[in-house]
Amino acid sequence: PARMYGRYTQDLGVYAKEEAARLRESGQRRSVADRSRTLDLLEYEKGRCAKCRICTVRCQKFLISRVGEDWIFLILLGLLMALVSWVVDFCIAICLQAQKWMYGGLDSNVFLQYLAWVTYPVVLITFSAGFTQILAPQAVGSGIPEMKTILRGVVLKEYLTFKTFVAKVIGLTCALGSGMPLGKEGPFVHIASLCAALLSKFMSLFGGIYENESRNIEMLAAACAVGVGCCFAAPIGGVLFSIEVTSTFFAVRNYWRGFFAATFSAFIFRVLAVWNRDEETITALFKTRFRLDFPFDLQELPAFAVIGIASGFGGALFVYLNRLIVQFIRKQKAINKFLMKKRLLYPALVTLLVSTLTFPPGFGQFMAGKLTQKESLVTLLDNRTWAKQGIAEEFDYIGHSQAWKHPQVNVFVTLVLFIVMKFWMSALATTIPVPCGAFMPVFVIGAAFGRLVGESMAAWFPDGIHTDGTIYPIVPGGYAVVGAAALSGAVTHTVSTAVIVFELTGQISHILPVMIAVILANAVAQSLQPSLYDSIIRIKKLPYLPELGWGHHEKYNIRVEDIMVRDVRYITLNCCYRDLHNVLLTGHLKTLALVETAESMILLGSIERAQLQSLLSQQLGRPRRLEYIRERAAAEKKLMSVVSNPGSEDESQRISQEVRFQVRARHSCNIWTHGNTSGFAESCLLTLIMCKCKFIAEWEEKQLDEQVNFNNCKIDPAPFQLVERTSLHKTHTIFSLLGLDHAYVTSIGRLIGVVSLKELRKAIEGSVTVKGVKVRPPLASFRDSGTSSSENETTELHKLWDRHKSMSLPREHTPSESDEKSQ
Amino acid sequence: PARMYGRYTQDLGVYAKEEAARLRESGQRRSVADRSRTLDLLEYEKGRCAKCRICTVRCQKFLISRVGEDWIFLILLGLLMALVSWVVDFCIAICLQAQKWMYGGLDSNVFLQYLAWVTYPVVLITFSAGFTQILAPQAVGSGIPEMKTILRGVVLKEYLTFKTFVAKVIGLTCALGSGMPLGKEGPFVHIASLCAALLSKFMSLFGGIYENESRNIEMLAAACAVGVGCCFAAPIGGVLFSIEVTSTFFAVRNYWRGFFAATFSAFIFRVLAVWNRDEETITALFKTRFRLDFPFDLQELPAFAVIGIASGFGGALFVYLNRLIVQFIRKQKAINKFLMKKRLLYPALVTLLVSTLTFPPGFGQFMAGKLTQKESLVTLLDNRTWAKQGIAEEFDYIGHSQAWKHPQVNVFVTLVLFIVMKFWMSALATTIPVPCGAFMPVFVIGAAFGRLVGESMAAWFPDGIHTDGTIYPIVPGGYAVVGAAALSGAVTHTVSTAVIVFELTGQISHILPVMIAVILANAVAQSLQPSLYDSIIRIKKLPYLPELGWGHHEKYNIRVEDIMVRDVRYITLNCCYRDLHNVLLTGHLKTLALVETAESMILLGSIERAQLQSLLSQQLGRPRRLEYIRERAAAEKKLMSVVSNPGSEDESQRISQEVRFQVRARHSCNIWTHGNTSGFAESCLLTLIMCKCKFIAEWEEKQLDEQVNFNNCKIDPAPFQLVERTSLHKTHTIFSLLGLDHAYVTSIGRLIGVVSLKELRKAIEGSVTVKGVKVRPPLASFRDSGTSSSENETTELHKLWDRHKSMSLPREHTPSESDEKSQ
Repeated sequence: PARMYGRYTQDLGVYAKEEAARLRESGQRRSVADRSRTLDLLEYEKGRCAKCRICTVRCQKFLISRVGEDWIFLILLGLLMALVSWVVDFCIAICLQAQKWMYGGLDSNVFLQYLAWVTYPVVLITFSAGFTQILAPQAVGSGIPEMKTILRGVVLKEYLTFKTFVAKVIGLTCALGSGMPLGKEGPFVHIASLCAALLSKFMSLFGGIYENESRNIEMLAAACAVGVGCCFAAPIGGVLFSIEVTSTFFAVRNYWRGFFAATFSAFIFRVLAVWNRDEETITALFKTRFRLDFPFDLQELPAFAVIGIASGFGGALFVYLNRLIVQFIRKQKAINKFLMKKRLLYPALVTLLVSTLTFPPGFGQFMAGKLTQKESLVTLLDNRTWAKQGIAEEFDYIGHSQAWKHPQVNVFVTLVLFIVMKFWMSALATTIPVPCGAFMPVFVIGAAFGRLVGESMAAWFPDGIHTDGTIYPIVPGGYAVVGAAALSGAVTHTVSTAVIVFELTGQISHILPVMIAVILANAVAQSLQPSLYDSIIRIKKLPYLPELGWGHHEKYNIRVEDIMVRDVRYITLNCCYRDLHNVLLTGHLKTLALVETAESMILLGSIERAQLQSLLSQQLGRPRRLEYIRERAAAEKKLMSVVSNPGSEDESQRISQEVRFQVRARHSCNIWTHGNTSGFAESCLLTLIMCKCKFIAEWEEKQLDEQVNFNNCKIDPAPFQLVERTSLHKTHTIFSLLGLDHAYVTSIGRLIGVVSLKELRKAIEGSVTVKGVKVRPPLASFRDSGTSSSENETTELHKLWDRHKSMSLPREHTPSESDEKSQ
Repeated sequence: PARMYGRYTQDLGVYAKEEAARLRESGQRRSVADRSRTLDLLEYEKGRCAKCRICTVRCQKFLISRVGEDWIFLILLGLLMALVSWVVDFCIAICLQAQKWMYGGLDSNVFLQYLAWVTYPVVLITFSAGFTQILAPQAVGSGIPEMKTILRGVVLKEYLTFKTFVAKVIGLTCALGSGMPLGKEGPFVHIASLCAALLSKFMSLFGGIYENESRNIEMLAAACAVGVGCCFAAPIGGVLFSIEVTSTFFAVRNYWRGFFAATFSAFIFRVLAVWNRDEETITALFKTRFRLDFPFDLQELPAFAVIGIASGFGGALFVYLNRLIVQFIRKQKAINKFLMKKRLLYPALVTLLVSTLTFPPGFGQFMAGKLTQKESLVTLLDNRTWAKQGIAEEFDYIGHSQAWKHPQVNVFVTLVLFIVMKFWMSALATTIPVPCGAFMPVFVIGAAFGRLVGESMAAWFPDGIHTDGTIYPIVPGGYAVVGAAALSGAVTHTVSTAVIVFELTGQISHILPVMIAVILANAVAQSLQPSLYDSIIRIKKLPYLPELGWGHHEKYNIRVEDIMVRDVRYITLNCCYRDLHNVLLTGHLKTLALVETAESMILLGSIERAQLQSLLSQQLGRPRRLEYIRERAAAEKKLMSVVSNPGSEDESQRISQEVRFQVRARHSCNIWTHGNTSGFAESCLLTLIMCKCKFIAEWEEKQLDEQVNFNNCKIDPAPFQLVERTSLHKTHTIFSLLGLDHAYVTSIGRLIGVVSLKELRKAIEGSVTVKGVKVRPPLASFRDSGTSSSENETTELHKLWDRHKSMSLPREHTPSESDEKSQ
C-alpha cells in the first residue's frame, strides 16, 4: 500500500514529496551534466590554474556522488555527536568545578557558603527552564518517549528542528552543570536524532536520497544508538539499549548502521579525552580493577539475586513515584494555577529543596553530599572494602572516598541515607521542565544499593565464603556494578544495561551475577509498572500501543470481531457531493473507506479526509463559482442587450458583479468562522446580494447533487485489512510491525468494521486487568463508551452546522489540530 | 488476514489446528473441573493418606496451571541444553583424550603412531556420516540456514523431529571427537531448536497454549539464542548472534526470552564445570589475563584496522572456497557418481587427507598439529609474547605453547603455515556430510592471524609504541582476540562476534579495537560475498529473500509494477466447476485469487489450491457418483418394473451395477496414472462399461457446468495487497516483516498483478548486479524467462490431459510434492 506506515500528519505530503524528490533528482542529474560540460570547457583552457580547477571540480563531483552513501552520513553523525558529547561534558565539568571553587573559597562563613551552594544551581536550573521554555518547549524532558513515538511512524511537530537542538544542548548543559541528580543519556538520544535530522536536511542540499522517508527512519534509529553510545562511550550497549527502548520490531539490516556510527562516535569521544591529556589511552569511563582470577563465589549468587529482586521493586517504585509527583502537581488546581503563572518557580523551588538537603556541612555530610554524580559513582565502584566487622574501618580513604566516612556515623547509615534521599530527589528532579534524563541518577542509586549489600556481605563474611585453601575476600565493588545494572534495567525495562555496565567499567568478569540480577529485576518491575518511558508516554498522551506483557495467554482468544467498530463511515464510488459533505461533517476520522456500493460494501480503498475536503471545495470553490456567475452574467447580458443594447456598460457591469460576489463570499465566510453577522457594515450592498443569493443557493444545491468525480483524488488502493477471526495477538503484531494507525476488517471483500489504535489499546489494557477467560463483556463496554463519546462531539457539530446551512457552505474547512489528534 | 504469515506446507492445517486447540482447551477446562470434583470427594475421606493425596492433587493442579507459562518452558529448555552441551563437551574431551593416549602409547613406532593418528578420526567421521545418513539426513551440516528459513515461516519437513535430534547430537559428538577442524556452534543452534520443538510437544500433553504457531516461532527464536549461549557460555553474544544470523526483523518483546533462557543455560553450563571440579568458580571459557591499566596504545589502532580489513577479505575467500568445493564436487559427474555410490568415501578421504597433514611427527610439527582446537585457542590468546626481535625467544613455553616452537623454524613460519593449512582444511572439512559448524575453526584461524600480526608488531616495537615514560609492551594476545572476532564476523556477517569474544575471554578491555576490526571486516566481506549461511541457503536452494545490501539507492526507484506478474490466475465468484478445473490444470500456484467477476476484477480473497481440489473432488467424487448411479438405477428399475416386474432381481441388479462402476472407476484411474490400458484384463466387463460410460460422461459434463458453491470452502478474505507504485525497498520490508510468500497487486480494488518471493528475489539480485539507474529491461527479461518455463510444464501436462479427457476425469488429483516445491 502506498501508505503502509500510518502517519499522523504527514500522510498528505508523502505523494507530493515523492514527486518533488523525483523532480529534484532529474534536476540534479541535469546539473551534474552541466557540471561535466563545464569540465570539458575548462579542459580547453591550458595552464596550471585550469588544471587545479579541473581537479577541484572532479573532487567536488566525486564528493557529491559519495555524499549519498550511508557510511559518510554515519561517520559525520558519529563525529558530530562525539564532539557535542565532549563539549557538553567539558562545560558541565567547568560548571561543577566553579561551584566547588565558590563553596571552597567561602569556608570562613557557613551562611555565605550555603548561599553560594544553593544559589548557583537555582540560577542554572531556572535559566535552563526559562531558556528551554522560550526557545523550544519540545526540548523538555528526556526525549526517549518522543523518539519511540516518532520511530513508530508518528510525526511530532517541531521535535526535530534546529531550535529544539539549541535549546536541548544548552538547557541540558546548564541543568547538569547545576549538580542536580539528573542524567544526560535520555536527552542525548534526542540530541543525536536532532543531529541526524538536521544533517539529513543539510546533506540533501548536495543531492542524494535524503528525501526518502523510510531511509530517514532508519537513520533516526541509528542516531538513537549513537546518542547512548557517545554518552557512555558504550557502543554495543548503546545499540542494544536504543533498540530496546525505542523499537518494537527491529530491522536487523539496520543493526550495522547503529554499530558503525556508535563505535565511531564512542571512539572519537574517547580519543578527544586522550588528546586533552585526561587519559593516557582509550579506556572505559568508570574503569574498575576487580581481581580477574576469582571475581565471585558461586555461593554469593543468592545475594546477587536479592539485589535483582529488590531492584525490581525499587525500579517500579521509582516509576510510580515519578508519575505520582507529576499527577499530584497537575491535579492540585491551586498549585497548578500558581505554577502556571510563575513557570520558573517550580524548578527553582525543587532545586532549592534538593541543594539545601545536600549542603555538605548540613545534612549533606551524612549522605556524601559534596560528591558530584560522577565522583559518587567512581567511589561506589571502588574495588576496596570500606567496612569490616560491621564498623567503618580506619584504612586510608583516599580522595573522594573520604566523603562516605563520617566520624560519628557508620558507613552503612551513610549509604542508606544516600539511597533513600537520592531516590526521592531523583524522582522529583526529573519532573522539572528542563532537558534531563533519569538513567544516570538511577544508575548511581543502584550502585549505592549494590555497595550496601556488598559491604554487608563483606562484614558478614570477612574472609570470603570460599572454603578451599585460598582466601578470596568479597568484592563490594562488584555488588555495586550488579546493583547499578539491575536498578537502571528495572526502571527502563531493559536487559542491555548489563552490557552498558560492562562497557562503562571495562570489566566483564561479573557477567553472570549482572545478567541474573538484571533479568530478575526486569521480571519484577515489568509485572508491576510500565517502564519510565512508557509511563511518560502515557502521561504526555502520545499515541502508543502498549506491549502485550509477559503472560499473554488470553490474547490468543480475543478476536478482532470483539474489538472492532462496526459502524464504519464510508463513501461509495457513485456517491454525490452531498453524501461527501455529510460524511465529512459527521465524523472525525482521518481516512474514510471507499466502497463500491452501499449494498455490496466491497472495500475499494481509503481516501484521506483532506482529499475529500479538497474535492468538495473544488466543486463549490471560488473559481467554479465565479465561472458560474460569469456565465450567468453573460446570459443576463445577452438578455439585457436584447432589451436595451447599451454596448459599453458591459465591462463595468461584470466588474461590479464580481465585486459583489467577492464581498458576499467574504461575508459568508464570516458567518462560518464567527457565527454571527454583526461585523458586517456594508449593509447597502446586502440588499443587492440577497436577491442574487437565491440563485447561488440553487446553484450550490445543484452542485451538491452531482456525482463525485474521483479522477483527481488520491486514493489509497490497498488499505490494510484484517478479518474477524484475527486474534488480538496477531493484530498487535501487525499494528506494531507496520506502524499502522487503523485497519479495515473485511469479510470476502465486504467492509464490516474498522479497528484503530484506540480500540486495540483499550482491548489490551482491558484484558490485562481482566484476568478471567471471558473477556468479551468488558471489551464490549469499552467499545460502546468509545463510540458514544465521539458521537456526542459529532452531534454538537451537526447542530452548529444546521444553524448555518441555510446561509452558505464552508469554502475550505481545514480541520483543527485537536480534531486530528482526537482521532 | 487469517494467513498473514505465508507458510509453505502448513497453510491448510492452521484453521483445523486452531479449532482443535479450542476443542482441547474446552476439554481441558472440563478435566480441570473433574479434577476439582475429585478433590472434593477426597476431602470427605478422613485420614492421613487422604490428606497426602489431596496435597498431591493440589500440587498437580498448581503445576499444570503453571506449565503453560513461558518462563517454565524457558528454564526447562535452558537446563536441558546446558546438560546436552556439557555432556557433548565431556564426550568430545574423552574422544580427544583417547586419541592422544593412543598416539602417545605408540611412540616406539612412527608408522603405528601414524596409523593410530589417522584411523581414529576416519572411523569416527565415517561412523558419524553413516549414522546421520541412515537416521536423519536432515541433521547434516550446521542447521543455521535451515533455522533461518524456518523462522521466516517456511515449514521444512523432518527438521524438528526426535530422530533428527538423536542423529545430530550423536553425529556431532563423533565428528568433533575426531579432532577435525569443525565447530559445535551451528549444530547447537539446531539442537536447541529441536529441543524447544520437542519440549513444546511434550508440554502440550499437560495442556497450555503450546499449540499456537506464533508462540512456537517465538520459542524457536529464543532456542537459537540458547544454542549459541550454552555453547560458548556467552548469553549476551548468543542472543545477539542468533538474532543477526536467523532474523530479518526482530520482535523486541522476544528479547527477554532469549536473554532469560540463554543466561540460565550458560549459568548451568558453567556450574556443571564447577561441580565437576574443572573450575574453582564460574569464569569465562577462554579466560585471558591482559593488563587492565593500558590495554593498547592509540597508535596501534592502524594495525587493528589492518587485521579487520584483511579478515574481511579472508572471510569472503572462505565463503567462496567453501562454495567452490561443494560446487566442484557436484559438477564433476564422474566423481559425483562414484561418491553417490559410496557415500562414506568422501568423508573418509577428506579426513584421511586432513589428519595425514596434521600428523605431529610429519608436517604437523610445523603447524602445531598436535594441539586440539581448544588447546590452540588457549595458547593463541596467551598474554605473553612469543617472539622478540624477530626470532623465537628462548623463554619457557609452558604446556601447550611448546607446540608452536620448532627447533629449526621461526614461530612466524609456524603461524603462517597454521593459518594457510587450517584455512583450506576448514573450508574442506565443513563440506563433509556430518553435523558440524564452521564458526569455531574460523575463530581459531582468526586468532592465529591476529597473533601473527601481534607478534610482528611486538617484534617491530620491542618496547611498545607509547613514548611517555612508562614502557607498555605490545600484547599479541589482544591482537589474537581482535583477529578471532574479525574473521568470524566476516564469515558470518555479524557484528556480535565482538560480544562473543568478550564473553569467551572474560575481558572487555579491547572493546574499541575489536569493534573497529569487526565493522571493517563486515564492510569488506559483505560487499564481496554473502554470509556463509546465506551461501549454504543458496546452495541448498531453500526459499529465501536476499538482503538489500549496503548501498541500496536504486531500490527506491524500482516499483512493484516493474516486477509483478500481470497474468494472474484467478477464479470468479460465479464460476462453474469447469473453470475451476481448467485453472487447476493450467497453474501450479499454491493459492488462487478470487475475484468478483472477470470484468470488474475486484479482489475478494484468495483460496488455496487444496481447497479448490477438494471442492472439485466433492462435486465429482465417488459418493456423489454412486448416488447418481443409484438414482439412475432406481429410475431404470422403475422403467424395468413397468416392463417386466421381476420383483427380486431388483437388489442383485443394483449390486451388479455398483460392481461395474467400481471396476470402471478403477479402470479410469489406471488410465490416469499409467496412461495406458494394457494392464486391464477384464475385457468382458469392458463392453458392459462402455455403454454405461456415455451416461457418466454426460453426468460429469453436467456437473462441471454447475456453478461453484463456495460455502464450505475456506477463503482467506484478506490476502496481502500492494499497489503498483510500492517501491522495491518497501516491498522487501513488508515481505520480510510478515514472512509473506506472495502478495496481490491491486488498483482501487481491481486485481492487476501478483508478486511472489521469486519475482522479488530476481528483482533484488538483478538490480544488485545491474548497477545503472535504468533497471527495467533486465527485470522484464527475468520475468519473461520465469513465466515461460512454468508455462512449458503446464502445456505438457495439458497435452497429457487432453489425451485422456475423452475417457474420464481424475477422481482425486493430489499434486505431487515437486509441484508444490516448484511454486
